[in-house]
Amino acid sequence: MTQLEAARKGVVTPEMEEVAQQEGYAPQEIRERVAQGLIVIPKNKRHTHCEARGIGKGLRTKVNANIGTSSDVVDAEEELAKLRAALEAGADAVMDLSTGGDLDAMRKMVVEASPVPVGTVPIYQAAIESRRRGQPVVEMSVDEIFAAIGKHAEDGVDFVTVHCGVTRETVARMEKEGRILGVVSRGGAFLIAWMRYNNRENPLYEYYDRLLELAREYDLTLSLGDGFRPGCLADATDRGQIQELIIIGELVQRAWDAGVQVMVEGPGHVPLDQVAANMVLQKRLCHGAPFYVLGPLVTDVAPGYDHIVSAIGGAIAATHGADFICYVTPSEHLRLPTVDDVREGVIAARIAGHAADLVKGVPGAWEWDLEMARARWDLNWDRQIELAIDPSRAKAMRETRPPKEEEVCTMCGEFCAIKLLRG
Amino acid sequence: MTQLEAARKGVVTPEMEEVAQQEGYAPQEIRERVAQGLIVIPKNKRHTHCEARGIGKGLRTKVNANIGTSSDVVDAEEELAKLRAALEAGADAVMDLSTGGDLDAMRKMVVEASPVPVGTVPIYQAAIESRRRGQPVVEMSVDEIFAAIGKHAEDGVDFVTVHCGVTRETVARMEKEGRILGVVSRGGAFLIAWMRYNNRENPLYEYYDRLLELAREYDLTLSLGDGFRPGCLADATDRGQIQELIIIGELVQRAWDAGVQVMVEGPGHVPLDQVAANMVLQKRLCHGAPFYVLGPLVTDVAPGYDHIVSAIGGAIAATHGADFICYVTPSEHLRLPTVDDVREGVIAARIAGHAADLVKGVPGAWEWDLEMARARWDLNWDRQIELAIDPSRAKAMRETRPPKEEEVCTMCGEFCAIKLLRG
Repeated sequence: MTQLEAARKGVVTPEMEEVAQQEGYAPQEIRERVAQGLIVIPKNKRHTHCEARGIGKGLRTKVNANIGTSSDVVDAEEELAKLRAALEAGADAVMDLSTGGDLDAMRKMVVEASPVPVGTVPIYQAAIESRRRGQPVVEMSVDEIFAAIGKHAEDGVDFVTVHCGVTRETVARMEKEGRILGVVSRGGAFLIAWMRYNNRENPLYEYYDRLLELAREYDLTLSLGDGFRPGCLADATDRGQIQELIIIGELVQRAWDAGVQVMVEGPGHVPLDQVAANMVLQKRLCHGAPFYVLGPLVTDVAPGYDHIVSAIGGAIAATHGADFICYVTPSEHLRLPTVDDVREGVIAARIAGHAADLVKGVPGAWEWDLEMARARWDLNWDRQIELAIDPSRAKAMRETRPPKEEEVCTMCGEFCAIKLLRG
Repeated sequence: MTQLEAARKGVVTPEMEEVAQQEGYAPQEIRERVAQGLIVIPKNKRHTHCEARGIGKGLRTKVNANIGTSSDVVDAEEELAKLRAALEAGADAVMDLSTGGDLDAMRKMVVEASPVPVGTVPIYQAAIESRRRGQPVVEMSVDEIFAAIGKHAEDGVDFVTVHCGVTRETVARMEKEGRILGVVSRGGAFLIAWMRYNNRENPLYEYYDRLLELAREYDLTLSLGDGFRPGCLADATDRGQIQELIIIGELVQRAWDAGVQVMVEGPGHVPLDQVAANMVLQKRLCHGAPFYVLGPLVTDVAPGYDHIVSAIGGAIAATHGADFICYVTPSEHLRLPTVDDVREGVIAARIAGHAADLVKGVPGAWEWDLEMARARWDLNWDRQIELAIDPSRAKAMRETRPPKEEEVCTMCGEFCAIKLLRG
């Protein structure tokens, strides 16, 4: 049984217990929301050493870190270091998006080393292996696509991005309206190229039932990818994007009918005043399925600082319904991220999520800030450092410019306002 | 005549022309808004080499960088380096908040070296000089306070923070309600300590006309400081803060009556869902006077990353009415900022301001992002770097991991989605 099927039968699984414990809810509350599809617990039956993480309604906003090689940079050790950095920084999930080197070995290494849910985008592997066999990407067969997904499921991957909403209808609608920056989703681009070349419907849409069967077997959570996620502000919330979301909403219900856990992926580059509307729309069109967003990035002009750009969008998104934030690192739009970029990206996304959790009434969120405020009033620096989202960074910063008096910091020194009025 | 007086008489000053040019408005539009108090152009008559910067309705959101020594760290060279870093990163104004070393020399150096408006908080100097004379801060005289303000005006300072809304009434109201983190404004704390010790009203409130006279003489813009700005989320939008804002609104109108340019300072630490309300409240209570915010910080728990925390709050604030953002650096709550912190802080605040300008309809904002989107579609990397908010950072990041093919980057390498579909 999948978590969804168990929940519907009234069974509280150990994973639901674990999530309830982590989040401060009664196990039955978690079970009810899993049964309704409002919460997913991505955990492949074969990823036995994986901790449960709940994603969805009422829960702490979760953060995913993308790692993995590219065709230009292949270094397994570095990817392992990124995984460790992501975990240390508090990532709740990682996606192995490797597109260079030995893809099977990379994925197995990440699943083996990760105590948190692991996601992948199997179409990458299908496309890359096709090319490696000397066959153009657009000539990969339907069976090859499903074989890649099957391999990932067997290897214990907990959730997969599948761009099932990229259909002839959505492609036509996008093309008719026109876009500044076309399609920036790699999976989406592979599929559109394939559909054009073969003059066929997207196999992930056409054979969606086959996908559901596979997913159900392993309790593989489907993450319905947004092939039309906008690549610039000007393309946001256009007909292609919203048409895809409508179709994804239908696919969400078919997944639920099949007992398969499902979440939905969302943008992307979105102007600040469209972020909330995008969240409301997803929740309504997808009947409350968990929403997993990339960014959103609220300006296009800050490469080098896109972790900050996406923290702005992510905080607003999570406030209005996003449940799961995919980090964006400072390297986005410029290069494959480094280990440092991974850490910066995870922390920025956690800040965004927490800023939202504070106002969404997520249990425990407010207490953290209150404790920090009290530690500041007490001028208790050890406690402030301990409570910081990244204690080692906070400690290092304070120590590089140590104050003359232990009680204060070098910003205000003897003119500390708190000290002055407390007497 | 001050800019305000000139505008009311129908005179378009060279500064209004300059602002109109920078912002893409007709000079008469700028004059009208200056006349209504909706825009300030802080420029002391003695700061003759200062470029004009307009702050207020319809204009690009401006960014201020705080620099200056503390009692623990005094290094004039470093402060000059911070000034340069702030200007290079695109700051529109700097405040010299020095509280250590030779305060007069520091201020003169900054005014001399700065081509953008310079702000100060003269009460710091009054308090510090009092202590240096062996006299407790609370024993400084009213004349000493005004002498400090006069000295700053004479030295060419363009705007001063004056905490005129810290009154017996506001203090009583704050104390009655209670706070987790008391008063975190240094200027506010000096004045409250003074008021308690002397059992007198705040001289900046009691003798506000004297302040107005002085400001008018130099066209010194008053920045009405928020002595009750919350120091933690739990204290946000409380009675003390809002009572002060009501009084500040009254003082705004008295400044306008006296022909003095005035803006209003705002929080601080504010939960994400209270940020917009704070902006609406200020605009209404202060009759549209420009709003200058510090942050707002949307969580208390991220010392080391408060530039990101404040970028989230600043973007939302600017979207809903804030006109001028005071940066917060990664060092906030930990130490006096370094030169690097200054750069990071300015860029983060500029990102926040620009994300808001895009949706506020600020002239030119949207075109910047569109150009970047087009450069991405063209895979034109030189142009992408040129258009980046920090070109040197973007260039360095790309170059540390150069792609094999010039057209792409090492994130996607040969599997670049744009390249794939453009063919």
